[in-house]
Amino acid sequence: MGDHVRVIEVPEPADPRLNDFRDLTTADRRPDRPGGRGLVIAEGVVVVRRLLASRYPLRAVLGVPRRIEELAGDLAGHSAPVYATSAEAMSTVVGFHLNRGVLAVADRPTAWTAADVVARARRVLVLEGVGDHENLGSLFRNAAALGIDGVLLGPGCADPLYRRSVRVSMGHVLAVPFAQLPDWPADLTWLRDSGFRVLAMTPAEHARPVSDFAGEPKVAVLLGSEGPGLTPEAIAGSDAAVRIPMAGGVDSLNVATAGAVAFYALGSFG
Amino acid sequence: MGDHVRVIEVPEPADPRLNDFRDLTTADRRPDRPGGRGLVIAEGVVVVRRLLASRYPLRAVLGVPRRIEELAGDLAGHSAPVYATSAEAMSTVVGFHLNRGVLAVADRPTAWTAADVVARARRVLVLEGVGDHENLGSLFRNAAALGIDGVLLGPGCADPLYRRSVRVSMGHVLAVPFAQLPDWPADLTWLRDSGFRVLAMTPAEHARPVSDFAGEPKVAVLLGSEGPGLTPEAIAGSDAAVRIPMAGGVDSLNVATAGAVAFYALGSFG
Repeated sequence: MGDHVRVIEVPEPADPRLNDFRDLTTADRRPDRPGGRGLVIAEGVVVVRRLLASRYPLRAVLGVPRRIEELAGDLAGHSAPVYATSAEAMSTVVGFHLNRGVLAVADRPTAWTAADVVARARRVLVLEGVGDHENLGSLFRNAAALGIDGVLLGPGCADPLYRRSVRVSMGHVLAVPFAQLPDWPADLTWLRDSGFRVLAMTPAEHARPVSDFAGEPKVAVLLGSEGPGLTPEAIAGSDAAVRIPMAGGVDSLNVATAGAVAFYALGSFG
Repeated sequence: MGDHVRVIEVPEPADPRLNDFRDLTTADRRPDRPGGRGLVIAEGVVVVRRLLASRYPLRAVLGVPRRIEELAGDLAGHSAPVYATSAEAMSTVVGFHLNRGVLAVADRPTAWTAADVVARARRVLVLEGVGDHENLGSLFRNAAALGIDGVLLGPGCADPLYRRSVRVSMGHVLAVPFAQLPDWPADLTWLRDSGFRVLAMTPAEHARPVSDFAGEPKVAVLLGSEGPGLTPEAIAGSDAAVRIPMAGGVDSLNVATAGAVAFYALGSFG
């Protein structure tokens, strides 16, 4: 297809140019832990493609030749090095068998502020205590699919840029704007003052169906962790408690699934 | 609370009375593989409770005393043996650390036929090629929460009674009726002749929004596997292709999440 990628062959796993990709299972990539470097890792063609299209500053790509070829068009315009090696050498470098065949690593860009995230948003997701990386990643995937414009992270949430979150999100954490909320639950008041109807999701019977709010111009959906749900402070800081109507006797949906149904019910995808 | 459970203390992991619970990671519990016995395993208080309330013939319960106590009310009326042991002995028996503290094992009851499943159903889920045990379990959980009356399994589906499916479903595979479809895709014609609108879920742009069919008295939602989706034969055997309206550029939702949104959109829980 005419796209030319300058590929650097690196047959030897010990080559120091591959250090960004080394020991991904044990190396801590989070800046909030000792020794963590905060690098962002994308795995597989689909997720690497999203990284290449994102605002994240690319450091390097490592893959088997066939996968790198699939990305030729996406790599055009990027000047970071692209390393090719064998599947076996890749496994040695990363520390496990990687059946996706390609990785990319990026630095973290300057974090958005909550004000940046809500600036032009009509629908935002606000999370409290979602500490599970897979649930967090799934929430970003569902948010991207169903028209959520940004995500705000309250206390107790996992890092959306952790490797497993990035993978489970299918790379959508790299596209959906997100920010930490510095002042909880006071920032819920700020959201309301900014024109958002803040809706606290709960399985409680007395809550109103979330679809009642589909006509609102600006909505913030507040979701808590899978077991305990939202704290009383978070619920008190909301405009209304809302629920998904469910069949009797069923406790509840997984938090990411509940999010998907709520986003859909709010008709936020136009 | 007055419920009396006769508990048999079994301190020794090698005790043959615990054989049903032995080596759960390696023992194949599926009847469709050599040596498979097809026993159904429930893990944790919530799932064991659903097993005890189901039509599945209980063989035995094994747990630490504290968890067995929590189940005292549910165990009333069951005559199968209830074995108590230490957490350490339990780990030795099952072959891994079990932090849920209680297990139950049951035989498979006589399988339902597809005709049994659809007999009084208004909403059924039909699956083709859903071979992933976790997706399958999640689909049952979502089906139970959102008013699906039964599940029909086409070719290539995993066993809903496999241990991991049971766990991920939160035990709802033991409550939502399901059956194998013996004749694919001819059974889709049978479903249509039985009064169901058969809707094939697809991400294709030309498909109609699934919510267009919320008013139908009887609907069968057809879902394919996560990657390839439904086969052309399955789509050809349906009344209509339907989709969930999504934001541009997003490939699709996880299959279980797509199911949840579709079940909700069909208003089947009302």
